[in-house]
Amino acid sequence: MTTSNIGIWLVGARGGVAATAITGLCALKDGLAPDAGLVSQLPAFRDVGLPDWDRFVVGGHEIRDVSLGDEAMRLATESRAIDPQLIERVKDQFPAIDDRIRLGTIYKSGSAISDLASEAVVRDESPRDAIRRLKEDMTGFAESNGLEHVIVLNLASTEPAVDPSLAPASWAELEPLLDRPQECPLPASSLYAIAALDLGYSYLNFAPSLGSATPAIDELARQRNTRHMGSDGKTGETLMKSVLAPMFHDRNLKVMSWVGHNIFGNLDGRILDDPVNKATKVTSKDRLLAQILEYRPQTLVSIEYIESLGDWKTAWDHIHFTGFLGTPMTLQFTWQGCDSLLAAPLALDMIRFTDLARRRGHVGLMPFLACFFKSPQGVEEQGYIRQFQALEAWANEDS
Amino acid sequence: MTTSNIGIWLVGARGGVAATAITGLCALKDGLAPDAGLVSQLPAFRDVGLPDWDRFVVGGHEIRDVSLGDEAMRLATESRAIDPQLIERVKDQFPAIDDRIRLGTIYKSGSAISDLASEAVVRDESPRDAIRRLKEDMTGFAESNGLEHVIVLNLASTEPAVDPSLAPASWAELEPLLDRPQECPLPASSLYAIAALDLGYSYLNFAPSLGSATPAIDELARQRNTRHMGSDGKTGETLMKSVLAPMFHDRNLKVMSWVGHNIFGNLDGRILDDPVNKATKVTSKDRLLAQILEYRPQTLVSIEYIESLGDWKTAWDHIHFTGFLGTPMTLQFTWQGCDSLLAAPLALDMIRFTDLARRRGHVGLMPFLACFFKSPQGVEEQGYIRQFQALEAWANEDS
Amino acid sequence: MTTSNIGIWLVGARGGVAATAITGLCALKDGLAPDAGLVSQLPAFRDVGLPDWDRFVVGGHEIRDVSLGDEAMRLATESRAIDPQLIERVKDQFPAIDDRIRLGTIYKSGSAISDLASEAVVRDESPRDAIRRLKEDMTGFAESNGLEHVIVLNLASTEPAVDPSLAPASWAELEPLLDRPQECPLPASSLYAIAALDLGYSYLNFAPSLGSATPAIDELARQRNTRHMGSDGKTGETLMKSVLAPMFHDRNLKVMSWVGHNIFGNLDGRILDDPVNKATKVTSKDRLLAQILEYRPQTLVSIEYIESLGDWKTAWDHIHFTGFLGTPMTLQFTWQGCDSLLAAPLALDMIRFTDLARRRGHVGLMPFLACFFKSPQGVEEQGYIRQFQALEAWANEDS
Amino acid sequence: MTTSNIGIWLVGARGGVAATAITGLCALKDGLAPDAGLVSQLPAFRDVGLPDWDRFVVGGHEIRDVSLGDEAMRLATESRAIDPQLIERVKDQFPAIDDRIRLGTIYKSGSAISDLASEAVVRDESPRDAIRRLKEDMTGFAESNGLEHVIVLNLASTEPAVDPSLAPASWAELEPLLDRPQECPLPASSLYAIAALDLGYSYLNFAPSLGSATPAIDELARQRNTRHMGSDGKTGETLMKSVLAPMFHDRNLKVMSWVGHNIFGNLDGRILDDPVNKATKVTSKDRLLAQILEYRPQTLVSIEYIESLGDWKTAWDHIHFTGFLGTPMTLQFTWQGCDSLLAAPLALDMIRFTDLARRRGHVGLMPFLACFFKSPQGVEEQGYIRQFQALEAWANEDS
Repeated sequence: MTTSNIGIWLVGARGGVAATAITGLCALKDGLAPDAGLVSQLPAFRDVGLPDWDRFVVGGHEIRDVSLGDEAMRLATESRAIDPQLIERVKDQFPAIDDRIRLGTIYKSGSAISDLASEAVVRDESPRDAIRRLKEDMTGFAESNGLEHVIVLNLASTEPAVDPSLAPASWAELEPLLDRPQECPLPASSLYAIAALDLGYSYLNFAPSLGSATPAIDELARQRNTRHMGSDGKTGETLMKSVLAPMFHDRNLKVMSWVGHNIFGNLDGRILDDPVNKATKVTSKDRLLAQILEYRPQTLVSIEYIESLGDWKTAWDHIHFTGFLGTPMTLQFTWQGCDSLLAAPLALDMIRFTDLARRRGHVGLMPFLACFFKSPQGVEEQGYIRQFQALEAWANEDS
Repeated sequence: MTTSNIGIWLVGARGGVAATAITGLCALKDGLAPDAGLVSQLPAFRDVGLPDWDRFVVGGHEIRDVSLGDEAMRLATESRAIDPQLIERVKDQFPAIDDRIRLGTIYKSGSAISDLASEAVVRDESPRDAIRRLKEDMTGFAESNGLEHVIVLNLASTEPAVDPSLAPASWAELEPLLDRPQECPLPASSLYAIAALDLGYSYLNFAPSLGSATPAIDELARQRNTRHMGSDGKTGETLMKSVLAPMFHDRNLKVMSWVGHNIFGNLDGRILDDPVNKATKVTSKDRLLAQILEYRPQTLVSIEYIESLGDWKTAWDHIHFTGFLGTPMTLQFTWQGCDSLLAAPLALDMIRFTDLARRRGHVGLMPFLACFFKSPQGVEEQGYIRQFQALEAWANEDS
Repeated sequence: MTTSNIGIWLVGARGGVAATAITGLCALKDGLAPDAGLVSQLPAFRDVGLPDWDRFVVGGHEIRDVSLGDEAMRLATESRAIDPQLIERVKDQFPAIDDRIRLGTIYKSGSAISDLASEAVVRDESPRDAIRRLKEDMTGFAESNGLEHVIVLNLASTEPAVDPSLAPASWAELEPLLDRPQECPLPASSLYAIAALDLGYSYLNFAPSLGSATPAIDELARQRNTRHMGSDGKTGETLMKSVLAPMFHDRNLKVMSWVGHNIFGNLDGRILDDPVNKATKVTSKDRLLAQILEYRPQTLVSIEYIESLGDWKTAWDHIHFTGFLGTPMTLQFTWQGCDSLLAAPLALDMIRFTDLARRRGHVGLMPFLACFFKSPQGVEEQGYIRQFQALEAWANEDS
Repeated sequence: MTTSNIGIWLVGARGGVAATAITGLCALKDGLAPDAGLVSQLPAFRDVGLPDWDRFVVGGHEIRDVSLGDEAMRLATESRAIDPQLIERVKDQFPAIDDRIRLGTIYKSGSAISDLASEAVVRDESPRDAIRRLKEDMTGFAESNGLEHVIVLNLASTEPAVDPSLAPASWAELEPLLDRPQECPLPASSLYAIAALDLGYSYLNFAPSLGSATPAIDELARQRNTRHMGSDGKTGETLMKSVLAPMFHDRNLKVMSWVGHNIFGNLDGRILDDPVNKATKVTSKDRLLAQILEYRPQTLVSIEYIESLGDWKTAWDHIHFTGFLGTPMTLQFTWQGCDSLLAAPLALDMIRFTDLARRRGHVGLMPFLACFFKSPQGVEEQGYIRQFQALEAWANEDS
């Protein structure tokens, strides 16, 4: 059997996570990057049949007037995140990728995002027109590159929250609203999801935005025999919560309060400085504690834009708990990580697992990917290790 | 069936952990203590048949000239660990327990420990004589209190390290050495273990001392149809390691170095200030990282006696790791917990699970108790959640 | 010369700081409290003629229906801040003090404060009526106790911010507004200040509220030959800023950003949870950095109410700076202190120094007290050590 | 007046601090480095007549077989400390400096240091022969470059401790011992000091090694009308101690214990991993607390070599103190700084101030430089701000 290529279609294709994922993918193809940070490279997944790195072709949508090379280099010079010498070695591959990036949509993305958009971005199209345009871009990409399948991955900044119950519960009810902008509550992330899924492509939502998280869009995915999952990549502070909270639960230590302060200075941080966008993110970072602990401690999550930090997300968490005989005790942690470098490998991992799911004929939500998400759709288990065990079990069940 | 009582025989019966466990057990019997900190009170173990708190009778061995009430009150006033009002409410029960405490042995316990011993402690008995005396104390306790079974739990301070390979591998070879002090490498903790197991009692080793961790003593346990487990209760910093290291492993984040500094000011801290005793503890706190990570990062563990902290064990850990594309990142945590309050409930939990194992006819090592120990004998898995799952599975398998 | 007594009139007389200051003063009189935390007990001030503790008589205003003993005991039991045994030893002195506490005013204190007020608090008096009533309480206190002088100290919770430029600049213009509630911008803290100063008493403002910080009230103080100072006691995180920022300045290390997150759970915390009250406090905590550094780094100050912490104010500060050749470096600190126990001794210290100033005939602002305040009125120097040197120099200049 | 050049003679001329200082000096001459980190560039010293950067010529002694360019580049690539692009811009100037570096001495430097030495380093010369050779190198440097004066600065790694009382108290008694290696207790750092001072050059000791810290060498300096100062540059954790301890003192907060753990991975760290060298350093880092506080809290200082950290010195300090009414409180800080980048600007600053002292005719110790040192010779004041005030006062007294 000859293997044809697989498309990765990045929404927010020149943002920090995308630029890092692209730099990393180029480096992996050239044998310049070690395995570190890649879950899919663990021995546990060695024999499950994940696609090789060189089978992937990258394209995507972007709304800003920037270039991939500049964005990658800013992560090296401004943030001291990526090694500048690595970028030097792979940057020859960037122009070809830049050529495969098209103008995206800012439909109901909120002003924090639309303020960043290129003047060339279409501002007055209906949801249906936007979807039609996005699909053309995606199918053009698939045809030009002879792709077997395309996996659409939302790496764009956080949109303002949308109450998912505002969207009709069935695809039959939702679909007509695409012509009625006033009534259609869907933000851009959902339009990308509909475009992808309607084409039978896979859709993954790395942002806390709505994306495919409505029953109607899930129905569409199942009708088209394709798959989707979200939301919100679990990279740093929330990963820590999903690792530590099970300890408190399983040791019967009672968490009285859990405070988490996050500071960082990249573009995501600037977008989250807008309260309407921030609310979406905070909810996603906060929810899991009560689910794991089975009670509701006082919690506080703040995310603040501190420019000097660049891509370095720093989180301080203060956990106040009682042990035996009621004495209050304290755990504090400080996490200092590069947001894009933590997120990018997970994006690549998810794509490989999603392709495996496709080859296994999996349709609908992909709950086995829960360990990658802060808010895994359709999954109750929020403890990281148990989520990882589910991925391990699924990946190895047929192999 | 009428249920008779179960004996808890504490070695180090007036130390901080013992005084806290006794205070807590009294409070639990009187309904004065909530479930916090007690693993055995989790819903997961509700229906497995653990013995009720009021079935336990406490006695033990101690080598110092102190009283239970004074030790408990020092934890309230000097360390601000236990609520003094709680001690007031239960202290009426202390004298009866004090009366069931006998003089222990300091055989090869090292000078840091023997310097603390009462003048009344016998200093020149052979291992065999010591064991005979310890057994008499234990059987006397069992008979006087009409006990169905006795569980001996080592809560004494850390002894100097003993190379377990120095002890003969079979009980038949070890037993004659009990008459030859020069050749017998066993420290006090092992003599208590032999005394207990030879009587068919259960033995648990909460300290990092040798205890029952030799093949010959394990053989004795199996010959006598009884059970044992150790070593070194996993209460704070090492618990954190066993929770966090699996995250680094399962995320393929490469730990370059893991530094852990522990400061505390209780009696255990004073004993550990002696380098020979400290070495035993540091090994126990350090070993698990390489087992979980499957490679050997640079590690450093320090334990220092800082008098002002009293029972408040404070640990600072600095974990330096690389993520994707080799960028170094950092996680730091500070753990501020009361050592005795973290250890005491685990001691009580283990005793309940051990009694359940006895009733189920379990003989030999109890690997399902691994989640309670820094260095679980006979167990490879060092990740906390997976260890907890093993306990949960075992506890529920027959129920 | 026979020495008569000096009155301490506390506004917020049954709050946490007041209850701690009263407990402490009682303990100092009885020789039960060591010097720790008291600046005025340093050798540097031994010979300057500060009044002895037993010369002070305490009274005050309060708006809540609580008792001194209950408030003090809550600091022992709920917050584990004060030793309960100390309270037992001094609580006999509380009823007499409780008897000298009168109902205060909540005039323009904001709803967060007025929601806590007793039903008995007068709600419809004009500023002039309120001042008249407050003065009667103060002079009644002075007369009943044969006091040589009264020092009024505002320990009440933070009021919403008032723009001081709204108040007329001269006492002649401000005074008529006391009859015109609509036009009078002054909050309760200023009414207490006017009452005190108009009587020739001294006034100190430990809160960030307006108090005496307007030119017109300063003019009144000078007309009455008395003295005043504020505002906002410098107890914890801001003290640290005033100690660390001079290091960054004097080492020419450039602070890019300084983030400070404060969490605590006492009544002050609950009041500050109201955004209008919080704004006053945040400004006071933030201002000094730019003054010390002589440039304006990005700063962030948050204050959040976390109930489980009680009186334990925990602050995490993250300071991001560049050293030589532009490399970013980081200093983080965590401060865990009992708010009331840090504030109360400063309150007592200030009172002693203020009485010394009175005996020296000092009139108007007292800039030599700057080291006690986050926002010292009329003082440019914000570095702690240089402020302390100013106090030391002033105190010793005549002695 | 024409101004001739001034020589900087670095001992340890290709170590991390030296390579950074040289890189920085080149950058300053070319206008490529901002003022950050340079005390001498503060406005306070603008008009005191410090020499311009372009008047300095660098030479020195080194014992290892390395090149300046490689050492500088390692700080960029291995440690991510210096910006690699900056090194690219100035590295053309390195070969000329490399040519002015001569082989130093390892006389009584301890095996941790001598193990690093080039095979070409002379191993069997007497102190007198070594001094003669060092002087020839220094005078050759002065003559070849037409230098008005040479300032010798010890940047070499820490030597094992020498008890200064072992050295005779007068130069007349010490001088004859230079021919008797067995009786001469002086280590290499002192031989460099003697060489420099005997030539009338200035000597500064940035290491905690003995250097010029004996009465006999001070006498030599005064006889030769020259000047010297040490020891041990105050760059990070100890700087913090000298800033924070005065706060605890001046607030009368009682420090019960102060624990400081330092981890780092540069060459200095490797040398300090040897216990005999470490002891010298720990003493220097610890001493000041008792001097500032005026009592002796329990202290602990550890310095550990953690390879992955490279030049990033990370310190965690835990300060346990009591405030009012005896309640224990805690301050913790984490300092993450590049050791070489913190030290190098101080080295350059000291050289400028030393040259000013020379022009002012200052002879003997230079106590006004105390703020740069952990263990300032002949100075009691250990508080940073007060030390800085002394520098400021001295620098401005004649100008």
